Amino acid sequence: MRILFELCAKDPEILFSPWVWAVRMALKHKGLEFESSPHIFLDKASYAGSGSKTLPVLKDGDLWVTDSFKIAHYLEETYPDNPLFGGQIAQAQSGLIQSWMGRTILGALFPMIAADVCALLDEENAAYFRETRERHLGCTLEEAAAGRMDRLDDFHKSLAPMHGLLKGQEFIAGDEPAWADYVAFGAFQWCRIVSELDPLAGNYVLVNWRARMLDLFDGYGRAAKRAHA
Amino acid sequence: MRILFELCAKDPEILFSPWVWAVRMALKHKGLEFESSPHIFLDKASYAGSGSKTLPVLKDGDLWVTDSFKIAHYLEETYPDNPLFGGQIAQAQSGLIQSWMGRTILGALFPMIAADVCALLDEENAAYFRETRERHLGCTLEEAAAGRMDRLDDFHKSLAPMHGLLKGQEFIAGDEPAWADYVAFGAFQWCRIVSELDPLAGNYVLVNWRARMLDLFDGYGRAAKRAHA
Repeated sequence: MRILFELCAKDPEILFSPWVWAVRMALKHKGLEFESSPHIFLDKASYAGSGSKTLPVLKDGDLWVTDSFKIAHYLEETYPDNPLFGGQIAQAQSGLIQSWMGRTILGALFPMIAADVCALLDEENAAYFRETRERHLGCTLEEAAAGRMDRLDDFHKSLAPMHGLLKGQEFIAGDEPAWADYVAFGAFQWCRIVSELDPLAGNYVLVNWRARMLDLFDGYGRAAKRAHA
Repeated sequence: MRILFELCAKDPEILFSPWVWAVRMALKHKGLEFESSPHIFLDKASYAGSGSKTLPVLKDGDLWVTDSFKIAHYLEETYPDNPLFGGQIAQAQSGLIQSWMGRTILGALFPMIAADVCALLDEENAAYFRETRERHLGCTLEEAAAGRMDRLDDFHKSLAPMHGLLKGQEFIAGDEPAWADYVAFGAFQWCRIVSELDPLAGNYVLVNWRARMLDLFDGYGRAAKRAHA
């Protein structure tokens, strides 16, 4: 039995974590079946055995694996068919890509959509989320989101390395998607699920890449329940 | 016969181009012998046959290969031992890393050291360099370099993805260096050769990585002639 512990909204069918989405896509990429075990932020008991307080957590048989990048490495090693990295060099340098994406994509989107995430939680979790995230942001969630449309130009500029690459190839990993694509997709899928904001609007190169990602595995990402669909 | 056409200063032993350094290191990595054919900016006649107006250009037997990334791909395909990428995924996603480095490292260092480059050229080439680069920068070379020490904090922050990765592994590509390391090294070697500015000063993780890069191939990079050594 393979279980993916993941974040959900008050509606347990709304599954939004960007890092979980990267892992979901990686599991589909490997052709591995899994059950979803959705949990709202403060509901950590069922995966306490993993030692992790953050999601995603994967339980593969009796083995707990935590942290999305480590899960990707674990899947690559344990199930080598359909490579997510395809070798030591790609695996090692993926850390640079993942870190860049975390800062550039997730880091820029978080203030824009944190209030949208909060609106999807129950009272207790919303209070927890608001307190911890406002401390981190140094302002209210609403202040962080203010004027977000005006920030999209700068956001698109910061995506120039990805934009430039995807003008010349279908996926970040080449002709077929791999881990780097799933990490980037996770961030945009998160936004797509929780928010009415489309952070890629007008950027056709990236919109088309996202559409290709949404089409993968018989439209797996496209079928996900959204808060505002 | 294998010839690397490359940029030089008025002193033809000062070989400084960052992209050429990436290719030099890649040739050493592959264990391939080559002759250097150094040319100052405006001296383009000897590699006109390549169709390229910019360096590096590699002539491998009768074949011209231009553009550093294309040269790396050519070397990988033609001389598969000692991989620079080690597979399709790493090769494809290297475009993202190279583009990020071009913008983040070279893009930040260029205004800081362009005046230092200019000072190493003869009169005619210095005039050409100044005119074209000042038009690009939108200010004089000296204005671009002003207060450069004050920009190093922000520069180090922008290097966070690379810094984070190199806290946990020896090279960007893992236990051994590969193309991504050579691209990043090229930028810092360029700076090291033309300028008294050390853009990595105080950042021990990156200083130590650079030292490992300078040690490669019996100290090949360390032995390069510098303008201010």
